[in-house]
Amino acid sequence: MTGPLAVSLGDPAGVGPELLAAAWAARGEHGSAAFPAPFFAVGGADLLQQAAARRGLAITVQRIADPAEAAATFATALPVLGDEDCAYRPGEPDRAGAEFALASLTRAAALATSGAAAGVVTGPVAKSRLAEIGFVHPGQTEFVAAACGIAPEDAVMMLAGPSLRTVPLTVHVALADVPGLVTQELIERRARIIAAALAQDFGLPAARIAVAALNPHAGEDGRFGSEDQRVVAPAIAALRAAGIAATGPHPADALFAPHARESFDVALCMYHDQALIPIKALDFDAGVNVTLGLPIIRTSPDHGTAFAIAGKGLAHPGATIAALRMAGECAARRLAERAARRAAS
Amino acid sequence: MTGPLAVSLGDPAGVGPELLAAAWAARGEHGSAAFPAPFFAVGGADLLQQAAARRGLAITVQRIADPAEAAATFATALPVLGDEDCAYRPGEPDRAGAEFALASLTRAAALATSGAAAGVVTGPVAKSRLAEIGFVHPGQTEFVAAACGIAPEDAVMMLAGPSLRTVPLTVHVALADVPGLVTQELIERRARIIAAALAQDFGLPAARIAVAALNPHAGEDGRFGSEDQRVVAPAIAALRAAGIAATGPHPADALFAPHARESFDVALCMYHDQALIPIKALDFDAGVNVTLGLPIIRTSPDHGTAFAIAGKGLAHPGATIAALRMAGECAARRLAERAARRAAS
Repeated sequence: MTGPLAVSLGDPAGVGPELLAAAWAARGEHGSAAFPAPFFAVGGADLLQQAAARRGLAITVQRIADPAEAAATFATALPVLGDEDCAYRPGEPDRAGAEFALASLTRAAALATSGAAAGVVTGPVAKSRLAEIGFVHPGQTEFVAAACGIAPEDAVMMLAGPSLRTVPLTVHVALADVPGLVTQELIERRARIIAAALAQDFGLPAARIAVAALNPHAGEDGRFGSEDQRVVAPAIAALRAAGIAATGPHPADALFAPHARESFDVALCMYHDQALIPIKALDFDAGVNVTLGLPIIRTSPDHGTAFAIAGKGLAHPGATIAALRMAGECAARRLAERAARRAAS
Repeated sequence: MTGPLAVSLGDPAGVGPELLAAAWAARGEHGSAAFPAPFFAVGGADLLQQAAARRGLAITVQRIADPAEAAATFATALPVLGDEDCAYRPGEPDRAGAEFALASLTRAAALATSGAAAGVVTGPVAKSRLAEIGFVHPGQTEFVAAACGIAPEDAVMMLAGPSLRTVPLTVHVALADVPGLVTQELIERRARIIAAALAQDFGLPAARIAVAALNPHAGEDGRFGSEDQRVVAPAIAALRAAGIAATGPHPADALFAPHARESFDVALCMYHDQALIPIKALDFDAGVNVTLGLPIIRTSPDHGTAFAIAGKGLAHPGATIAALRMAGECAARRLAERAARRAAS
């Protein structure tokens, strides 16, 4: 059995606590394979009880003193490590909540980097709230990368759902800046990280990477935009020469149609909306944000704090469940791989 | 009963002829409401027979001398107006095929503008092939607009499927050129055309128009890109002041998620892939391209010639059937509206 996953609760005024409670409560519905790894919350025992009660969930929370206790506790109670806690005021974010969210995230990440946890699953935070208390990272992905000693540009965000996996090459930048940021070097670097991570953690030793075109119709032979010919195509050629199963540049409108989706394992997209529109259209309630390129496993539900519906029983736990399952599956693959290496040596 | 629709066959080496035959052959499956209006092909009687036979469809084709004969013929045979024809060589486009496609398109559009047909449904053509024989328009939409005396920029392409309707503000331009082309004037002009057309032809007198943001997260208060604040938001305010139910700018990644889709009738998107990725991901086999802003009704299946699979029985007739149904529904609404006006006067 893999070790347990550490879960940070996210902003306590958002939907993170209630969805973690709902995910734990749903473990029975999914049979013994519900969660490939047990998990524990980092802080927030009272918060979780209150959030669960508000949602009408009768759950048992049990404090643990060490991550190693999580496995034995998990079947009967949601394990919580640590005494940090916070008042439950759904929909009313405040400074104390941001401080609690940051403490939970910091400790959860540290437990993963130290090896005490098999990975970290991060609940949704409000970036602007964290910035107000001095958080210097653009988001949790960059924070976790820094905790691992990885340059932020090598921590690669992948969105994964039942229908599709996508990676945005550029993320939170103006659309006008995208064409200038799409370079051959960046495409190659990201594709290599993707190929290595899908081999290590997703059981895909020769992942088929479909590279989306920047321009509509891939520019139609340069009629509207030359980047796909000048920049994207040479990057793909270099990747193929290095043995990576990259194809494209593919016109992005057709790439996510049902038949086309079967032809690749992951789509490397040139910008945020190109990658996120299809995954949210197809897999909204089961989308997972995975960080590739880290020494640790890190996943997150692909949605925000949803302050407007927090505490109302409306938020869907599907993405949280999917993030917990995916992190567990990745951890199980790493464990099996280590066991195989030991057996071979 | 509405008048008949004129159908241009598209490139005879593509999937147009076989899908028109398959659509007519499917009329029984859909009951009496299969097609709200009868339709006839413009030319290609032999071509249609051969394409149908290759697909294993036993259809009867019957030449008619006047569009008015289509209704009486439609139940028992696929009506064909005119003697123009072409050899059937699927997957092998040539000059003769392009000339046939252009002749079929030209006559079909003329029948619609003269009122002899209730609308025109255009089969897929290869734009590069048409350009070789002197076709000066970027596509069929602009050709039909010219035939109606409408400026090409006022012929608005809408993609419509069972899940979603979208309109791209800019279409076949490099992504780098998009931010400069997004102007307040253009957004307002297009939204007015959309609102008028959805009221006239789609039974939506107060269509909810969701305007997508140009930048990811709508630029997050200008942190990445100011166009959504400077250009898109003022356009929406002006439209609302004029009584049009426009909202936004909406972050585009979340706009096409299931719950969000229920909140609007049409999404006005800033560029090609933003509009076409969601519709092709969700409604690939039933996507219709409708031209708004014309005095006539014009629809088209939202796919290309698919030369690679023509004649192989693989192409799905769903989009052709949907285009024929939608044009018929629009024609029926115009007819009912005219009858109501006559009754009132």
